[in-house]
Amino acid sequence: MTYRYDVVGIGNAIVDVISLTEDAFLARHGLKKGAMTLVSAETADRLYADMGPAIEVSGGSAANTMAGIASLGGRAAYMGRVHADQLGQVFRHDIRATGVAFETPAATSGSPTARCLVFVTPDAQRTMQTYLGACVDFGPDDVAPAVIEDSHIVYLEGYLWDKAQAKEAFRKAVRVSHANGNKVALTLSDAFCVDRHRAEFMALIEDGIDVVLANEAEIKSLWQASSIDDALAASAARSDRIWAVTRSEKGSVVIGGGVPIAVPAEKAPRVVDTTGAGDLYAAGFLCGLAQERPLAECARLGHICAAEVISHYGARPEISLRVLANARMK
Amino acid sequence: MTYRYDVVGIGNAIVDVISLTEDAFLARHGLKKGAMTLVSAETADRLYADMGPAIEVSGGSAANTMAGIASLGGRAAYMGRVHADQLGQVFRHDIRATGVAFETPAATSGSPTARCLVFVTPDAQRTMQTYLGACVDFGPDDVAPAVIEDSHIVYLEGYLWDKAQAKEAFRKAVRVSHANGNKVALTLSDAFCVDRHRAEFMALIEDGIDVVLANEAEIKSLWQASSIDDALAASAARSDRIWAVTRSEKGSVVIGGGVPIAVPAEKAPRVVDTTGAGDLYAAGFLCGLAQERPLAECARLGHICAAEVISHYGARPEISLRVLANARMK
Repeated sequence: MTYRYDVVGIGNAIVDVISLTEDAFLARHGLKKGAMTLVSAETADRLYADMGPAIEVSGGSAANTMAGIASLGGRAAYMGRVHADQLGQVFRHDIRATGVAFETPAATSGSPTARCLVFVTPDAQRTMQTYLGACVDFGPDDVAPAVIEDSHIVYLEGYLWDKAQAKEAFRKAVRVSHANGNKVALTLSDAFCVDRHRAEFMALIEDGIDVVLANEAEIKSLWQASSIDDALAASAARSDRIWAVTRSEKGSVVIGGGVPIAVPAEKAPRVVDTTGAGDLYAAGFLCGLAQERPLAECARLGHICAAEVISHYGARPEISLRVLANARMK
Repeated sequence: MTYRYDVVGIGNAIVDVISLTEDAFLARHGLKKGAMTLVSAETADRLYADMGPAIEVSGGSAANTMAGIASLGGRAAYMGRVHADQLGQVFRHDIRATGVAFETPAATSGSPTARCLVFVTPDAQRTMQTYLGACVDFGPDDVAPAVIEDSHIVYLEGYLWDKAQAKEAFRKAVRVSHANGNKVALTLSDAFCVDRHRAEFMALIEDGIDVVLANEAEIKSLWQASSIDDALAASAARSDRIWAVTRSEKGSVVIGGGVPIAVPAEKAPRVVDTTGAGDLYAAGFLCGLAQERPLAECARLGHICAAEVISHYGARPEISLRVLANARMK
């Protein structure tokens, strides 16, 4: 069976507003370092007013992943909701310019295009405050069945799991994908998101997810485990699913058929900004999976992509990941 | 006499859209490497559609210079015209976040905020295609006399010298500044701009400019000189003006009282993107001038600022120029 797309991602379409900052700024505004927090338009405006000079770069977790897959030479598509405004045009331009198909129409009423204020501290950690804007209206009508049918893997961004219509959109994507014998992957996105929706995430995984991606905090939250080993064991017990758990500098653990394999991280040339590390790991992993490579190789690809993206500001690759991966995977 | 501001800059308020590209892209679109070309909204859209993924960073020549002065610890203000749109908000946020006063009201009708498509080739050169948008309506009403009166130096961006109302705005700024015994500086901005308006630039310099900044091509064009030595000699003959001529890796020549002094360039840690080199030289030079330092020291400050900005993407400093200059000027 051949597909038009290796992976189609569904996520929050966001423009990142990135600024270097000091720890004192986080303290002054009561921001939790390393976390992603949803904020109102008013809070976003207040924080922005106090933020230093910034650069604007297209972001969004699943969108970054699709950009990474395209850079690896994979065929990717994306669904997400922007407004018909300047930042919406920027988002559409950038994702298309990477070679990702993106046809979700821009909203002409309602909130502006979403933005994420990213505060990068000298330790290369990022603290994110997201105003969701136009993203909150993403619904089943934004899920194009023809694209889902023609995609080997559908990749769902857990961040969306807050609004009823987004959940309905996910269920529609799962239905269409599985009706065609395709695969569905889910990233848990955020430990707080998992906390809020644990039972529903469990039900979603039970009913329709083939591949789960998570970091340590997220997988522990999912299983309410006190240690990462317990969380990995609980995941392995669900041997009919594929699990990929990232562990920062410790690399990742991938589990298929109940067998965990630890894969070491790739050495990054330098660590400037960790924004996008998980997104780009997902890019390599899913691209490998679509090519039906062994899981350890999928993880390796993921680490190569993550190492590139943390070596500079912004959450999308600056060089060809295809060229990089070919050189490294020899 | 003490002033509220060391320097107030008047220029085109532009957001830069920066993308890495190959020489083949320039050839395909017939773009002249290293030049700044004004383009229509349609041409900008066409080029943007073919451009790679980009980052958005506030720019504008005089605005970059004011951001540099603020980073050096100088007191700077800015006048320029944006539209009341998202990129206009980005521009206003960024320049204010650097500490520059910027009160020109945003236009609520007419064209959108200006943008400059910057194509950076692997040799670190930048080729710029500018859609002027809201900038073309800058006029005398946008020049706030109280700010001009309270600024040691007014800095005029030659790029504006195209429209009748911008010329009238310049003349108003010169009038108000000189009526208060303040100084006026002009950057010639672009050799093609000088070609188009040579006689008028000469008359402007004759009537009201105390300090002229230019690069080699611009100063040669002004004097219609076939060599840089001839152009420098012609400048020196106008000994009642201060001249600062940048010569890329050869450093700069500053002339006061008819005496030329060659000042070597500072070594840059690396050369990534030459966008903003001239703008940041002007920042150091003008900041030194406002502090009434010797001309050679002003030039030295200029070179230190330029070396920082070419070591990364974007035309505004990423680190404190005050800290950098203090360390280097010891």
